[in-house]
Amino acid sequence: MVKVVAKNFAKEDKLSEIIQLYKELVELTRKEEGCIKYELYQDKDDATILTMIEEWESKKALDEHLESEHFTRIVPTLNKLMSRQTDMNLYNKLI
Amino acid sequence: MVKVVAKNFAKEDKLSEIIQLYKELVELTRKEEGCIKYELYQDKDDATILTMIEEWESKKALDEHLESEHFTRIVPTLNKLMSRQTDMNLYNKLI
Repeated sequence: MVKVVAKNFAKEDKLSEIIQLYKELVELTRKEEGCIKYELYQDKDDATILTMIEEWESKKALDEHLESEHFTRIVPTLNKLMSRQTDMNLYNKLI
Repeated sequence: MVKVVAKNFAKEDKLSEIIQLYKELVELTRKEEGCIKYELYQDKDDATILTMIEEWESKKALDEHLESEHFTRIVPTLNKLMSRQTDMNLYNKLI
């Protein structure tokens, strides 16, 4: 299993556009083989912090996701609407 | 529901000591009322990045956790073994 946390920093005036794009991305990604969880969270105190918390059956499934049509189409568009680079980590469960 | 992501940056030579402390913290926290998930993850490429991903039934349950005997005893000790401040966010589920 691979856990992914991707913390994104949205431009405030682009928030509704970003959330629409995420809705499409989430819907299509949840249909992928090997996707256990793919959920978008919003910081309680700062609406511009949008964090994807993901769970994949394997690194292979995650790699296939990163090469999918919807990821390679939607994520570069999303990145242009962010105020700075995504803080992303891949994790193994320790405890 | 409240989701918490707490990203911690361990001093490399304190890793085994830190993990021992986390084991106790995780075991005691999972017994708390309102704790849905309390899991520690380690970055695949950087063993010093230790991230707690939590799920609480309510903000009240989280607040009680932050005041618990085990949290107020173990976390200040843990903080002294870190190389810099924890990056912590509280989230609502958006999608």
